Amino acid sequence: VKTPTELTKLFNPKSIAVIGATETPRKVGRIVFEQLKGSGRKLYPVHHKELQILQEKAYQSVGDLPDAIDLAIITIAAEKAVIAAEECAQKGIPFIIIIAGGFAESGPDGRSLEERLKQIPLRYSSRILGPNSLGIFLPLEKIDTIFVEHGDKALAAGGGVACIVQSGSVGVEGLGYASNTGFGMRAFVGLGNKCDLNETDFLTYFARDPHTNCLAFYLENFEQGRQFLNLAKPIALQKPIIVLKAGSTASGTQAVASHTGKLAGSDNVVTGAFRQFGIQRVYDDEELCDASKILSALPPTRGNRVAVLTGAGGYGVMCADYIERHDARAQLQMAVLSEETKRRIKKATFEFSACHNPVDITASATDEMHAGSLAALIDDPAVDIIISISFFATPGISSRLQDLIVEQARRTFKPIIIFTEYGPFTDAHLKRFYGAGVVGYPSLSRTVRATRTLVERANILKQLRDIG
Amino acid sequence: VKTPTELTKLFNPKSIAVIGATETPRKVGRIVFEQLKGSGRKLYPVHHKELQILQEKAYQSVGDLPDAIDLAIITIAAEKAVIAAEECAQKGIPFIIIIAGGFAESGPDGRSLEERLKQIPLRYSSRILGPNSLGIFLPLEKIDTIFVEHGDKALAAGGGVACIVQSGSVGVEGLGYASNTGFGMRAFVGLGNKCDLNETDFLTYFARDPHTNCLAFYLENFEQGRQFLNLAKPIALQKPIIVLKAGSTASGTQAVASHTGKLAGSDNVVTGAFRQFGIQRVYDDEELCDASKILSALPPTRGNRVAVLTGAGGYGVMCADYIERHDARAQLQMAVLSEETKRRIKKATFEFSACHNPVDITASATDEMHAGSLAALIDDPAVDIIISISFFATPGISSRLQDLIVEQARRTFKPIIIFTEYGPFTDAHLKRFYGAGVVGYPSLSRTVRATRTLVERANILKQLRDIG
Repeated sequence: VKTPTELTKLFNPKSIAVIGATETPRKVGRIVFEQLKGSGRKLYPVHHKELQILQEKAYQSVGDLPDAIDLAIITIAAEKAVIAAEECAQKGIPFIIIIAGGFAESGPDGRSLEERLKQIPLRYSSRILGPNSLGIFLPLEKIDTIFVEHGDKALAAGGGVACIVQSGSVGVEGLGYASNTGFGMRAFVGLGNKCDLNETDFLTYFARDPHTNCLAFYLENFEQGRQFLNLAKPIALQKPIIVLKAGSTASGTQAVASHTGKLAGSDNVVTGAFRQFGIQRVYDDEELCDASKILSALPPTRGNRVAVLTGAGGYGVMCADYIERHDARAQLQMAVLSEETKRRIKKATFEFSACHNPVDITASATDEMHAGSLAALIDDPAVDIIISISFFATPGISSRLQDLIVEQARRTFKPIIIFTEYGPFTDAHLKRFYGAGVVGYPSLSRTVRATRTLVERANILKQLRDIG
Repeated sequence: VKTPTELTKLFNPKSIAVIGATETPRKVGRIVFEQLKGSGRKLYPVHHKELQILQEKAYQSVGDLPDAIDLAIITIAAEKAVIAAEECAQKGIPFIIIIAGGFAESGPDGRSLEERLKQIPLRYSSRILGPNSLGIFLPLEKIDTIFVEHGDKALAAGGGVACIVQSGSVGVEGLGYASNTGFGMRAFVGLGNKCDLNETDFLTYFARDPHTNCLAFYLENFEQGRQFLNLAKPIALQKPIIVLKAGSTASGTQAVASHTGKLAGSDNVVTGAFRQFGIQRVYDDEELCDASKILSALPPTRGNRVAVLTGAGGYGVMCADYIERHDARAQLQMAVLSEETKRRIKKATFEFSACHNPVDITASATDEMHAGSLAALIDDPAVDIIISISFFATPGISSRLQDLIVEQARRTFKPIIIFTEYGPFTDAHLKRFYGAGVVGYPSLSRTVRATRTLVERANILKQLRDIG
């Protein structure tokens, strides 16, 4: 059995066969083929009847294809997909993606089909992604095989997060989040039923990939749990690893069995092991995206002392409450500001500004006052992290504040995390901030949770280094 | 001392004086006056120099005003505002709103100014809202004195939630949430520093107001804690009361003191008392809005057994995890579906649909399949609540599903709560659902939390009734 851990031909193929490509609108084979037209790769559509598909000569069978094709994407239904996969393997195509469902997740007939698929990598030198895979998406390589709408335009700029998901829908929604106000994406991989390639293969690959700076997984089960953990530990010293492991309660675990035909494993064991091996655990897709965003964009913190800056007193109070609340992820504490810092803030703002922490410069503050206070907090050695509550509703604050915050953020390694909200403008503000390298969130609880994620990352690094 | 608990002339005044009204653009007095022009009330602008303001004859002093004015809104700065308030009281104006800050929250000088204000209701029959109040907003009465941008167009339709907030910024953000995908608003009241009128007055008033079906408070301290609680208990039997009480940790409590010059009170005492007196506690503005939305729109549940319907298996798993997680608010449990229900769902969908709970009808489901499964769950007596995970990304699902869900929701008293997400379309979906009386949220954790809020409400009703 050959086990090519080198997945370059999967993610950056020179030539791609699309089995089931068609001109029929809305069919999966049409959407996938159409999207790949923009990839600049040599494409080989295969359809048993159609002779030409979107200006490309079509082949009537896999056997008719030329040699040395790097990747086959099979878009036809389960039973026919198995036959096509066998033909692709015989043809020596090293990577095969199978999109169709109707395998182990769908009952006894599907299970026996999946058993046939599992034989292929054992008998040939081909590796399979899927079945029931959403496909792959790599903005940098212009490779996109995902047949559902996923906001590609916003994601086209790329980013550092490799996102590997066992559930198609979670993947699609994650892509939606990412394209909205979320993180920049290095790669998206839909694992599907994992008849062959699984999370461990992609952990290994993206750990070495120079464009990846953060690995995010949605998993319902582990194929090789122990191996995954052992591999994760040294990787976590270099790049953050986040895992959303679904199926943590009785019903959740049972639902995993229905969804993928797999056992979810004991939840307590999972939680304990994750921490020990440097993996950060999250519990839903919102958390996964929020954690990916901050861990890919910001360096680990030096400590857990947080300064809160606000022009909105009530939010300062709520933020302090959240910060001091106990949380298993990581503890935060309110920074104790120096007298010098307090003087500087009062001088930059008003004599009546509240200069304990949270720092409340009131609704009368201007852009310059907010930026001046931020500068004072950056310069205070007793502050490790700054949460800047930046609303744009009061008369003294304009969108220029965004530029001033970005300017301050660029002169320091201290994380400055933005909380901004207020209806329809929020996403636009957050996008502009992110475009300039500043991370923010549209809810207070998510802002503080992301801050904890960053401190958790620092704690993990310390723990792994201490162990050696 | 007169204590008119009847606040009709505050919220539905026939005539309004605006002290500090001006033609100068962007000034508070200009914005407030301009907004009130649409109210259909008789307006009396007062400015020491300007003779006419936006086509209305202006008065040069409060003394020049005619008699029998219902409400005075004072938009000038602190020291002058105190003098104007005294003049308004001498003139017999029963209600005075003071917008300016610079009182107790800003140091010794401001505190003595506020002391002078406090004397006014003791010496005259006038009541004061503020100082440092954001103002009031009542869509039904077309009264809007709020000088910061707050998405009024979306809120103009009104709703059942009376929202009473001690912090201006929390109020503005709450209004932003509400106008986005949140709740319909009956009334908004900015309490400010509460030199006279406080949360207890508004609790009493909106409890009796026939247009109010839910009361939501953001408070940093209680003026008359014991009285508030005693009043709340019988009201809670009729209408849900939600309180966001900020200042629950050491730093939060200290920040309250800086923000309002008040003591926040012991947090443990607060939590215990709230529950006993029928108040539902929340911890940030997102929670406050989410709870308001569901409690104002849906009747209390009969029980806590939740059925989850999804075409996206992964979300079914995560949702089950959240439902079975322990939470102090209220416990939920996964409903055990009858064999008949399972048969109906399989018949309406596929033989391979997972018909345990969560019910996963797969990404191949159509609008009709989703609606048919929902119908089966509604008819199952072992189901109290349904969470419908309704995404619009798969080919079989169209926006028609919204109509089908609304149709099902209208034939049952069982709460059907929607979770939908996916980037730019989410808000539009949620707005359309809400317009048709169906409540939904854009994140899984918020959906399950809101479900808990509804069960908590049912538990509170049971507890209060049992006590008698």
